[in-house]
Parts: sequence; C-alpha cells; structure tokens
Amino acid sequence: MQWIDVRSDTVTQPTPAMREAMFNAEVGDDVYGDDPTVQALEQLAAEKLGKEAALFVPTGNFGNQLAIFTHCQRGDEVILEESCHIVWHETGGAAVIGGVQLRTIAGVDGVMSPEAIEQRIRVGEDIHWPRTGLICLENAHCNGRVIPLEAMAASAEVARRHQVPVHLDGARIFNAAAHLGCDARDIAQYADTVMFCLSKGLAAPVGSILAGRADFIARARRNRKLLGGGMRQAGVIAAPGIVALNEMVDRLKDDHANARYLAERLAVLPCVEVKLEDVHINMVWFRFTADIDVAELMAALRQAGVKANPPEGGLMRIVTHWQVRREDLDRLVEALQRVLSD
Amino acid sequence: MQWIDVRSDTVTQPTPAMREAMFNAEVGDDVYGDDPTVQALEQLAAEKLGKEAALFVPTGNFGNQLAIFTHCQRGDEVILEESCHIVWHETGGAAVIGGVQLRTIAGVDGVMSPEAIEQRIRVGEDIHWPRTGLICLENAHCNGRVIPLEAMAASAEVARRHQVPVHLDGARIFNAAAHLGCDARDIAQYADTVMFCLSKGLAAPVGSILAGRADFIARARRNRKLLGGGMRQAGVIAAPGIVALNEMVDRLKDDHANARYLAERLAVLPCVEVKLEDVHINMVWFRFTADIDVAELMAALRQAGVKANPPEGGLMRIVTHWQVRREDLDRLVEALQRVLSD
Amino acid sequence: MQWIDVRSDTVTQPTPAMREAMFNAEVGDDVYGDDPTVQALEQLAAEKLGKEAALFVPTGNFGNQLAIFTHCQRGDEVILEESCHIVWHETGGAAVIGGVQLRTIAGVDGVMSPEAIEQRIRVGEDIHWPRTGLICLENAHCNGRVIPLEAMAASAEVARRHQVPVHLDGARIFNAAAHLGCDARDIAQYADTVMFCLSKGLAAPVGSILAGRADFIARARRNRKLLGGGMRQAGVIAAPGIVALNEMVDRLKDDHANARYLAERLAVLPCVEVKLEDVHINMVWFRFTADIDVAELMAALRQAGVKANPPEGGLMRIVTHWQVRREDLDRLVEALQRVLSD
Amino acid sequence: MQWIDVRSDTVTQPTPAMREAMFNAEVGDDVYGDDPTVQALEQLAAEKLGKEAALFVPTGNFGNQLAIFTHCQRGDEVILEESCHIVWHETGGAAVIGGVQLRTIAGVDGVMSPEAIEQRIRVGEDIHWPRTGLICLENAHCNGRVIPLEAMAASAEVARRHQVPVHLDGARIFNAAAHLGCDARDIAQYADTVMFCLSKGLAAPVGSILAGRADFIARARRNRKLLGGGMRQAGVIAAPGIVALNEMVDRLKDDHANARYLAERLAVLPCVEVKLEDVHINMVWFRFTADIDVAELMAALRQAGVKANPPEGGLMRIVTHWQVRREDLDRLVEALQRVLSD
Repeated sequence: MQWIDVRSDTVTQPTPAMREAMFNAEVGDDVYGDDPTVQALEQLAAEKLGKEAALFVPTGNFGNQLAIFTHCQRGDEVILEESCHIVWHETGGAAVIGGVQLRTIAGVDGVMSPEAIEQRIRVGEDIHWPRTGLICLENAHCNGRVIPLEAMAASAEVARRHQVPVHLDGARIFNAAAHLGCDARDIAQYADTVMFCLSKGLAAPVGSILAGRADFIARARRNRKLLGGGMRQAGVIAAPGIVALNEMVDRLKDDHANARYLAERLAVLPCVEVKLEDVHINMVWFRFTADIDVAELMAALRQAGVKANPPEGGLMRIVTHWQVRREDLDRLVEALQRVLSD
Repeated sequence: MQWIDVRSDTVTQPTPAMREAMFNAEVGDDVYGDDPTVQALEQLAAEKLGKEAALFVPTGNFGNQLAIFTHCQRGDEVILEESCHIVWHETGGAAVIGGVQLRTIAGVDGVMSPEAIEQRIRVGEDIHWPRTGLICLENAHCNGRVIPLEAMAASAEVARRHQVPVHLDGARIFNAAAHLGCDARDIAQYADTVMFCLSKGLAAPVGSILAGRADFIARARRNRKLLGGGMRQAGVIAAPGIVALNEMVDRLKDDHANARYLAERLAVLPCVEVKLEDVHINMVWFRFTADIDVAELMAALRQAGVKANPPEGGLMRIVTHWQVRREDLDRLVEALQRVLSD
Repeated sequence: MQWIDVRSDTVTQPTPAMREAMFNAEVGDDVYGDDPTVQALEQLAAEKLGKEAALFVPTGNFGNQLAIFTHCQRGDEVILEESCHIVWHETGGAAVIGGVQLRTIAGVDGVMSPEAIEQRIRVGEDIHWPRTGLICLENAHCNGRVIPLEAMAASAEVARRHQVPVHLDGARIFNAAAHLGCDARDIAQYADTVMFCLSKGLAAPVGSILAGRADFIARARRNRKLLGGGMRQAGVIAAPGIVALNEMVDRLKDDHANARYLAERLAVLPCVEVKLEDVHINMVWFRFTADIDVAELMAALRQAGVKANPPEGGLMRIVTHWQVRREDLDRLVEALQRVLSD
Repeated sequence: MQWIDVRSDTVTQPTPAMREAMFNAEVGDDVYGDDPTVQALEQLAAEKLGKEAALFVPTGNFGNQLAIFTHCQRGDEVILEESCHIVWHETGGAAVIGGVQLRTIAGVDGVMSPEAIEQRIRVGEDIHWPRTGLICLENAHCNGRVIPLEAMAASAEVARRHQVPVHLDGARIFNAAAHLGCDARDIAQYADTVMFCLSKGLAAPVGSILAGRADFIARARRNRKLLGGGMRQAGVIAAPGIVALNEMVDRLKDDHANARYLAERLAVLPCVEVKLEDVHINMVWFRFTADIDVAELMAALRQAGVKANPPEGGLMRIVTHWQVRREDLDRLVEALQRVLSD
C-alpha cells in the first residue's frame, strides 16, 4: 500500500516531466540576469496573468512580503481580510519586513465588502494618520472558497477610486480560475500585483511568482536581493515551474471534482458536517458533530495509509492534488467510517 | 469676548497653580535619576493607578508606543479594537517603532467581546504564527464612551488565561473613573500597564504617564531613552502634572455635567441628532440630519467666539474642559441655532 | 557648602529668567499649530542657524533620530564618525527607528577626512548596494573638540558633489561657534539639517531644535507625531528656550575660560595628564597616569561638595557650565590634589 | 569557441552528477520536515563544519541575514569589518530585517585586530548603549584573502571573554580551508554560527547553509519561515548540494592553482600590477597602471570568448572555478596582452 498525503497540496511531488525539465534545464546566474529558463518562466507567468512582468521568488510567503515591502513605505496601513494567509500564516512578517500597520477586517466567507474597505481608507492628509498603502485580496481564499469576480471588481473599484494599489495573494489563483471557469487573467486584472505558487496544486517543487507592472517588478527585483531571495542557477527550479504552468493547470479541475466527490461521501457519514457549498477548489473542510478520539482517528488514518493533519477544535481539512486518486479517497472515507461507527 | 475652544481637551491651558508649580519646581537631571519633582510625580501617579512604578513621558502617543515596544518582540501580534487611538491616530507608529502586527477587531461601541479576543489569540506554537504579544484596551474610548468594568474584567480574564499582557490606553482614565463613580485603580487593575495623559482634561501643559510593574518600568526607562524621550530638568513639567493629579481630577465631573447639559440642549435643536446615552464624559458627538453649509457654520461659530473642529461627514464633536463654562456652551448653542434656523 | 555638579552640562538648572518666562508663557496646543511661544522659538532658532524653518523636539536624541528618519528610507546607509553621539550614546536607535545601516569611520580627533567619506559613498546603482542616504557630522564633537570650519566645508563639498544630504548633530553648536569665534550660522551652513540642544550649556530645562529647509521640517513635523514627540502646551518649555538663545549664548565663552583654567591647574598636578590643546569648549578630559583608588577619589570629591562621574579606565571628564564658578573649580582641584598626594 | 565566464564563481553551472542527483532526488515537504534529501544535506553540512545542526536556505545573503536576525534583538550592535560582504553587498538588509546597528571597523587586509574589536564591545550596562549582539567575521574574505587561523582564534577569544556570539560568513569557507590546508571545521570552530554557499565554487545551482547549535537552528528555522525562506520540495536543490559537498570540495585547490597561474602570467604583463601574495583562493585582483580604454578591453575579451566584469577604477577581478581551464586563462591573458600592447 502506498501512502496518500492529504495534508495540503504543498506536499505534491514533482512529476516525471518536471524531473526531466530540471535535468535538462539551461541555466545561468539569475542575479546577473543570465538564466534563460528563469526568464522564460517569468515571461510565461506574466502572460498567463496578463501582467507586464514577473519575478521568480523562493516561496509564496516571500512573494507576498516582497509585494508589501515594495508597494509600501514603512508605517503605511494595509487593509486586508483577517483570516487571510498574510495575517494568519506569515509569522508577523509584514510588521518585521514591511514595517506596515495591518487593518484587519472580518469578512463574510473571506470577502470584505467594498464599504468595509472604503471606511478604512484614509482620505486626505492628517498628521495623525498613516497613509493607506495597500489593499490585499486573496483568491482562492485559504479557507478554500473562491471570491467571485464581482467581489474582486468591487474591491478594485474602491481601491482605484482612492488610488490605493491592490495586491492579490493568488497562491491558488489557477484553482480559483478553474472554479470560476475563467482565465487567471480575468481574476488578475483586478489587482496591480499578483503572487501565485508553482509549488502547490501545480506540483512544482519550489517557487512562486510575483507579477505586475515592469517598473514595479524592477523595484521588486532589487528588494528581492535585499531580502535574500536572489538565487543563482535558479533555472533548475524554474524549469519544472514552466512544466507546471503548461501541463498542470488544466488538470486542477480533476482535483476539484475529487474534492467534491469526497465532500459528498463525507456528507452522508454520521457525525460529520460538511458544507458542500463551500467546496470550491481542492479543499474539503468538515466538522465532527460528536466528540471523537483524535488519537484513535489519526491511528486509523495512518493504518489506512493516509497522512492527514489532525482536526483542530473538531474541524478537519483534506486537500486533493495530482497524487490523490478517487480510490485513495475511498480508503480515507472508509477509515473515517470505521472510527465513527465505533 | 473671550474665545472658547471646544476642539479638544488637549487645548487646555495650565492653571495659575500649575504656573506657580513650574516656577517653583525643584529640578535635577532626570536622565541621571536626579529630578525630585519627576520622581514625586511618578510615585503619585503609580499610587493613583495602584501600580508599582510609573514613568513620565512627553506625550500619550509616546507612552502607548513605548508600552507596545517594551511588551512585545518585533513580529508579535497585538489585538485591539479597530477604532481605538493606537490604530486610528498614531500614524502607524506601532509598525515602525514596535514592529508588531496589529489584529484589529470591530467592537461594539468600542468594546471587544471576550470571545472576539479569544478567537484571535494564538494558542500553542506554530512556525507560521506570530506570538500574541499584547492586548490593548482603551478607556475612556476616544469615541467618548466609557467601557464598563465588567467588560474590562472579561477582557482581562481572557488575557490572563492565555498569559497575554494587557496595556490600557487610559489617556482619559480619570474621566472614565468619574463616569463610573469609581477609582482609577478600579479600572487600572485590569491591565498590566496603563498610560494616561496629564495634558488633556487634567490641564497640565505637557506629559503623560506609563505605569506598571517595577521591572517593566525599568525596561521602559531604557527604551524611553532609545526613543528619544529622556528629558533633562523635566521637573518643570512634572510639577504641573502633580497639580493636575491633586487638583484637577475631582472636577472632571463638572466637565461631564457640562457635556451632558450641552447634549441636552443640542438634542432639542432641529436637524441635530445626538445620542444622549453615548455622552459619558466630556465629549458630545452629534450629527446634522440636514445638509448644512460647513463654511457658514464655522463662520458663525467663529463670530460667536467659538473654536471648533468642523464636522466630518456631518458628524461633529464638542469637548468640554476646565476653561469651558456653561454660558460658553449657551453661546455655542445659540450660534448653531442661528445657522440651523436659516 | 553648596554642591557643584560637573558631571555634564545636561545638569544645568533653569535660570531665574527662565522660570519667569515659563510662568508667563503664552501657550496653545502646538499639535494644532497654536502655540505662539513655540512658534517664536522655532523662528528664532531657525534664524540663529540661518535655516528656513525649525522644529521643537523633546530631546537632542529625539532630534537626531528624527533627522535620520526623515532624511532616509529604511535600508539607506549613513556615514558617520564612529565615536559620535549617534553611534555611541543613542541606544541603537538609528537601526530601530530609522532602519538605516551605519557606516562608521574611525576619525582623527573626531574628524572624518573627505577621502574617507568619499570612499564610502555608493556611486551608481547596484542591486547589492544600499543607497547612501545621509552623512552625519557632529560639532562640537562629544569628545569636547571643535571641528574646524575647513573640515566642515570639505565634508560638505564631498556630500554636495554626490548629492548626499548632511545632518549636523550640533548639540553644542553654540559652544563650537564660541570656540571658533564665529556665528552658529557659519557652522550650520555646511549641513542641510542641524539639531542643537537648549538644555545643555544653554541651561533650558527641556528641549532641542531640529532646523532645515521648510519642506524638510514639514515632513519632520509629521514624523515627530509618529515618534510621539508632538507635545501640547509646549510653550511652557519653549519660553525658557527663548531665554536660552537670547541670554545664554554669549556667556558660553566664560564656561570655556573656566574649563581652560581648570585644565591648566590640572596640568601641573602630579599623575595627571591633560591635553590642553584638546580643551576647546566646556569640557576637560584628563588621564590619571598612576593607579588611583576610584572609591577614595569619589569620596574625596563628594566631601568637597563635588558631583562628578567616576573615571573610566583612568580617563575622567569635567564639564563646566553657568552654575560652576572658578572657586568651585579650585575646590575640585584641591580635592584631587589631596587624593593624589596620599 | 566556447565562452568562459570569469565574472564570479556564482556563475558555475551544475555538474552532470548534480543534474542526475536532482533527477533522482527523493523529496518531501520540507516545511513539514518531510524532505529526506534536505535532512541529509543539513546533517552532512553540520558534520563538515563540526556543528550540531544546519539549515538549508535559498541564498548566502539570506543565511547571513537570518543569522543576524536570530542572534540579535533589534537595536543590538554588530561589530564587523567594513569591507565585508554583509556591509558592502547585502543592500542594507541588516538594518531593515535585523534592525541592528553596524559598527564597521577598517581592517588590515580584511582582518580586524582583537584590540579593535574589544574597544567596540559595550562592557556593562548603560541606558545610552545598545547591547553588543554579535561579531561577524568573514573567511575567505570577499577580497579574496584568507584570514589566518590565529586571527580567527584571537577574535573568537575576545568574543568569548565578553560572551558575544560570533557569526562567520563562510560563503567560501572551503576555499579558505583549501588555502590553509586545514579542515573547514578548524575554521568553523571559532564561530558560533557559520554560513556557507553551495552555489559558488562548489557549483550547486541554488542554496546555502546556516549551521550552529541545535537550539539556535531551531529558532532560525522559525525565522526562516518569517523571512519567506521555507521552501517545499527543496530536496531537488539539496541533492546537488550533497554532490557539491562530496565531490567538489577537494578540487577547489585546482581553482586556486589556476588563479595562481593566471596571477603569475599577469604579473609579467606591462601596465599590470598584481599582488601575488594576495592570491589565496580562486580570485585574482589586478590593477592597470596605465589608462586603458575599458570599452576596447571588454570588446577584446568578448572577442576572445571571455565574460568578465569590467575594471572599476582600474581594478579588475578574475575568478576561477570548475568550468575554467588553464587554456581558457591563456586565452584571457593573450587578449589582455593584445589590448595592452596597442
């Protein structure tokens, strides 16, 4: 029996085509601007997002922080939804690196209303006020939901009216596009800059992209050096990134279908509550409505060959990706069933 | 006709007794720990708040930022209500100086529920998480409302349970105590550190106090130097601070009564909406329910000898203090009446 | 017997005229720009330095850090002599507040050669380089020596050629001017911004000045708020500052003469080495050439009514000021004599 | 004709064995601690340096900044030689990220005397002083010289005496060891933490190592996440790092011999000055003693198939590495000869 790993799509391993690409990658010193593979990836990524330019960075976290650092002066205020990744999972980096003040808004399903955003934008000059430096959106939200294009448009409209730039944490933008049945460009158009990850559902081993206007990316390139992200023969990891963009985007819908399949199977289990309407991408969140023995649950999953994160406060997350097949999910459901029927 | 200034209680001028006190102040170099008047003020202030020690600082803003800087490591998260002074009126200083990440909560009337606080406290260790470094409360809130003791107690209980320190922005703590009919100590007990201003309703010309445990204040003293707040013969401004604490606290209730008087007079004016239940201290907020000509309004007030801040979005604030008498408020109301009856 | 305090000129107490000025000061809320006395001081100070505008700040440390913060972007490099006050005595504030990288140069008698400065200026753009954001000079140097005008001019010339701004820590600029027999303006002309202290030899109780171009000072005013230095009825401490500038500048030469007198008396003592050529202002540094018992020395001084800082590594500093008379210095010398002859 | 690239050893391309290793690398999600190849590299690297633990990071710059960030509190002072990489080539990151104050010392050949270090260590507590948080050494120095073990020992001894930790920027520590004829461990023993690069002379495509005590590395691991350096299937770049350590270390002496060969050939050219005694590793610095036409020089080199950085102020650097053979250097010398004989 082979392990399946449903902890996250960050666990995805590179495909054979990616390994080939690494092996054959033409490389150069990217700090000198000499790596043709990195350049090809940056150009391809920019194009996919409809942006002028793009920059390869070591991680998604790095890309978000670099965006904040490059958009803002220290002391600026950044408006963002409070359960987003930047607030919740980036170790306070925005304060340390960017020196910015977060204004967190409790959204509804991860969506900030345009009114909520507008109320917090500083209009006019006041010696007591920080400048509103940036609005951050996230799509797909790390809660697994996709923000509708209309909501993106509404946020962008407020931002533009007040001349505040918008950064999109699009770690899973291609999942969002797959769910919306649109192009990543259609989402990216509502943001000045976009970060997305090559290393999650797209399965590249390492790396993310920050895209935006050419002048912004030029400044970000300098700041990438300052923050220690100027890698040398980065072509070896850019090459699988190109494979990721060319070969792994279209198949994300399969992960979504699998997630849907799992959610529906979970929905009929006793003591499990799953909101099917929240299953937008490759993530299924569900809640145990009865007390369960977490140790027993995890043991049962391990025994079934399933690596999963334990539930927190009764809430559990399963993530599908290219290495998770439908029969793997059946195995997972059966293991759960056994535990719940005890 | 003499001007009355109702823009804020920050405009208060020192009393004759304060001028005497400055004139006669025994002073020394406070960086060397040699200023007896500063020491007397610090001891008196600590005692009034029921804290071990206190530190004299140039401004309230300085005191709040010093508290955050001393409580937190860079990158820590600070939980606070989103319309409080630290978020709204301190120019983003917490990110620049403290390097902390704000987690702002939309409160009800400026009060965060204990559940809202608890949800945002980071429990356990996770490499992706900032540490929850501090919870900030504010009483009286800068919206003019006083936080009930029960709400303070509930916040403090959550904080203590999770071993997170609490800082109280008590810029107007004596106003809050006057409203609650309690001692400042009764409010301060719910916070590890408290900042209050000598220079608002208490009328001292310059300076605020940061109080807390002796070891915290010792560290804050070093950090005060780092932040450029180590003044020399500060006794000359500490002396009126002592007068403020001894002579100006008990009379705050008169300012509150005057604010109440004004609110009631405003409430019967046409096109004015004032929530009497929100008039807790020396501030009256009211809303014009019809379009008014701001320029005309301000001219009429000036003509009546009234310095006021113009309304923002139809919302206007009047602040009472020791230099505002009831007849001054009558003059103000009459001027408004003339404008509104046009 | 009255104590004399020769630890520093920071210990100076306000003169009777200063106390009168505080008592009578016309004040307003300076954050609103309403304090006529602060404005008068700022105008007078700007004029004395030949600058367009000036800003009143709580301390010299605050003024220096505010200058760095306002001149530089985070990550900029600041070139300065390594024994200057900003490096040595400001608790690392430039890194915390300004986020700047110091490039410290070992000077000769506190003077950096123009070549040494120029070598460290970053010419051209390189992704690996911080921008050279500022050159800091100090005159009088905190080692007690005055930097000649030619050295100031040479540094300024290099700076101007590379379009790097110059900040002068002129905490004791009037002492420097007295020594050089020139006007403070003649020194200040070589810097874009100048900080000086009202509270050292000039004897005002609290406060310093940052002066420069009007647009710089406008930005510094906002940053002063961010850093917590926006005081309210600051006229009460600005008033003695005006007295300091009007009445205390011309008499600094008396302090210098007294320092010289002291140095000459020390020079003939056994086991004392004093470099007369280094006694430029109101400071005398001398070295014990034999092992002395520090405890005994300090006891003898205390008994003679002298407050002094103990020698560090055999090196001792005495500072004269308006409260130190020649007979006080005689008393000090006699006490030393007794100890050394034991 | 094939290009040779002597701009830096950062331009080195991965060897065939490295490409194989990437292709076959067993990987996992390293943020979850699941990547066996990264773990193998970290263990191997720690062992080579004689340290308890090691951490894989994206770049050398990242590793140095992470070390500073993890050793120091904000506002701490860091003592280091002023022409080292951290000062000169890391874009001011230490101030932005670490918030530390640099104390730069002009060394002799890149070596700080122990006296110079000791003079700058803050002994005792003073409210005016930053804490001395770290001493940084660099070996090999980026000027191409190797610091003798005795000098390392002397610095370490001062540091230990004052309980200040030492970080070694050992980007080219294996070059230094090759020159000294010792083990990397013999150098690393003088530092608490060491950073070295897999991607310079060792030819791995991407990545560096930070090594030290296990508890330090645990804290650095969290901070690596904060700074955006937590890569996922990093095994693909760790695998060539293992090859680098196993196969590329011993051959560094060949690069040194080639550099020596080049230096000796250059030394006999007219109008070229090269200090043979400074050629320690794989770098040759030389100076044109006559005015040369840089454009013509660069054209001639290009024509000879040589990529080089142009001289700055008459000073030129050539770096050898595994892709530079002796006949390539002959070609380079001949091209220079032609230009110089014009």
